[in-house]
Amino acid sequence: MKFDQLAEYYRSALVEDIIPFWEKYSIDNEKGGFFTCLDRKGNVYDTDKFIWLQARQVWMFSKFYLNLDKREQWLEIATKGKDFLRDHGRDDNGDWYFSLTREGAPLVQPYNIFSDCFSAMGFSQYALASGDSEAKKIALEAYENVLRRKENPKGKYNKVVPGTRPMVGMALPMILANLTLELEWMLDEKTVMDSLDNCVREIFELNYDSETGLLRENVAPDGSFIDSFEGRVVIPGHGIEAMWFLLDIAERRKDQDLIDRCVSAILKILEVGWDNEFGGIYYFMDILGHPPQQLEWDQKLWWVHLETLVALLKGYRLSENEECKHWFTKVHEYTWDKFPDPEYGEWFGYLNRQGTPLLSLKGGKWKGCFHVPRGLYLCALELEMLGQK
Amino acid sequence: MKFDQLAEYYRSALVEDIIPFWEKYSIDNEKGGFFTCLDRKGNVYDTDKFIWLQARQVWMFSKFYLNLDKREQWLEIATKGKDFLRDHGRDDNGDWYFSLTREGAPLVQPYNIFSDCFSAMGFSQYALASGDSEAKKIALEAYENVLRRKENPKGKYNKVVPGTRPMVGMALPMILANLTLELEWMLDEKTVMDSLDNCVREIFELNYDSETGLLRENVAPDGSFIDSFEGRVVIPGHGIEAMWFLLDIAERRKDQDLIDRCVSAILKILEVGWDNEFGGIYYFMDILGHPPQQLEWDQKLWWVHLETLVALLKGYRLSENEECKHWFTKVHEYTWDKFPDPEYGEWFGYLNRQGTPLLSLKGGKWKGCFHVPRGLYLCALELEMLGQK
Repeated sequence: MKFDQLAEYYRSALVEDIIPFWEKYSIDNEKGGFFTCLDRKGNVYDTDKFIWLQARQVWMFSKFYLNLDKREQWLEIATKGKDFLRDHGRDDNGDWYFSLTREGAPLVQPYNIFSDCFSAMGFSQYALASGDSEAKKIALEAYENVLRRKENPKGKYNKVVPGTRPMVGMALPMILANLTLELEWMLDEKTVMDSLDNCVREIFELNYDSETGLLRENVAPDGSFIDSFEGRVVIPGHGIEAMWFLLDIAERRKDQDLIDRCVSAILKILEVGWDNEFGGIYYFMDILGHPPQQLEWDQKLWWVHLETLVALLKGYRLSENEECKHWFTKVHEYTWDKFPDPEYGEWFGYLNRQGTPLLSLKGGKWKGCFHVPRGLYLCALELEMLGQK
Repeated sequence: MKFDQLAEYYRSALVEDIIPFWEKYSIDNEKGGFFTCLDRKGNVYDTDKFIWLQARQVWMFSKFYLNLDKREQWLEIATKGKDFLRDHGRDDNGDWYFSLTREGAPLVQPYNIFSDCFSAMGFSQYALASGDSEAKKIALEAYENVLRRKENPKGKYNKVVPGTRPMVGMALPMILANLTLELEWMLDEKTVMDSLDNCVREIFELNYDSETGLLRENVAPDGSFIDSFEGRVVIPGHGIEAMWFLLDIAERRKDQDLIDRCVSAILKILEVGWDNEFGGIYYFMDILGHPPQQLEWDQKLWWVHLETLVALLKGYRLSENEECKHWFTKVHEYTWDKFPDPEYGEWFGYLNRQGTPLLSLKGGKWKGCFHVPRGLYLCALELEMLGQK
């Protein structure tokens, strides 16, 4: 495998295809912020603004300005999103809405804390890129929101009857692992260490299932298995993404045991989650092999494959496990064969089981300027490091 | 078309395949109520109890006892479900939960009113079948819940910010049209007339789009179009089911104009919603042809096809429009070719776009003993009436 050539392949797709697509089609010069609902050709088909995607695009362009190339227009794009979010994104409690109209009027309440998570990420990265102290303050407030609301992330919107079947999810420790490293530069060391320790502990002591080697999305508070739809669900892409978040922590700690555990989990999830008939990684699975409740279970999603490529390269660099390289080749070939749109640029997001686009969109309510560019960027970085080894 | 032969075909599938499947596999003799999560062979793979499906099965077996055959075991099955729901189904306000554990402990709160709708239906039909006055009282209370909560059906679980983009849905008038006729025997005439008038008016004045001839799931309170994911979504099966509910009202009123409007809408929805490449009716569409947000949009669902068969036969009997007969043949052939499981009985619920089962289950969180048996029963009835014409 020629790491340098591959690095260049990932980097040029990012710089020549992906970033220009979002620069060209997603900026709302009139009302601020970004359009994310873009059809195959880049036309805007819906103008609502979803906080996750607004904040992630702020993060992305700040990151590119900071780490890829000091192009003023990239910082300007990030600023546009930052201003829009600062002016319209929060309710009276400072909690981040889920979505807004094009003009910034609130549409959907802060019914979970992932809007706050991604806002913290976006404002933090923007503050780093720009030196803007207001952005730093907003990032910190959003992070504190997450910590404050973490025991009951859905608040009054939580439909689960308390007490009958207590359950804890993997999403929160997973996102906190990544978010804490993102905000490390503005947090005190103890907060960082405690938070990272907690994330690793929760995921490996609770969600990790030593019998199957898989990560369960939801478990009882003591980590035991719950035989229900929620308790049985495995989301391969989610588990693999969580593992590369933890690899970042392991690398920081020089914790070879944690590295090996993460790599094993990645390989195990791939072994189970790979579709041997049509290729690609399933979206949802049932740990006991029962029918999952998600009708989209067999679809192949862009982010799952990008996060897997990142995880395999990080895993290979840190563990030198040859299985990572083998799987990287396999997932790389599937991904580049199926997702990019050679005609109009950028990537399809949603393929059916057979690998044919199910929706022609380049962006929507959940797909924005995030997983493709972040994935390509991180893969290029990893490949460069591998090339220098 | 030989109506009598077809009637016999539908009826024998119901009596020889469908009803025995649910009698054999779904009854929880130990804890009461019904298992609905049944795999391809009928094995229980999850024991949670979902109120919609519990109540619908009570309705179904009461209906069969009352109208198909006075078999004592059918009334006993209905009684089992009725007792379980009566003892465990409601919170302290009398609102119906969404789901319970096998033993009846509440799992998911009454976050919408469809549990109340189906409970009203189930207890009403049970009261008719058994003469049980307590069941009648419970049915009436559930119906009153629906009316009381109808302006804000999700209550505190409603995540939409009030005021920004007011929207009304079709689901409520649609279900009330059916429910009011179901409960007619215990309601005063004015309540019935007012409710039916309202349903017809709301659906045709607000949801019906005269430009396309389609039914929009969500519109502004004045019926105008809202250009958002929610405002653009069309659910063909839902629209067609609503139209047969309204055909029942039209027949009762001898309202030929309403009959013709319903039939036109059914035919228009089919024209747009039929998959010309692989056959079958799509699950979700965007009225402007944009990408829908539902990833399952192109799947072929059992209930959509059954409700369409019912609608086409009712439409044909009441309007004598030959297009209904033509479409009935087409949908009948697709449905009977794809959904029944010749090996283990009953029907698959979820097919991919190509018509292959996507999940092998016979029942789950949303598929229970309802749309297949109700559809077959109603089709048999319609075909018998057509045969006698």
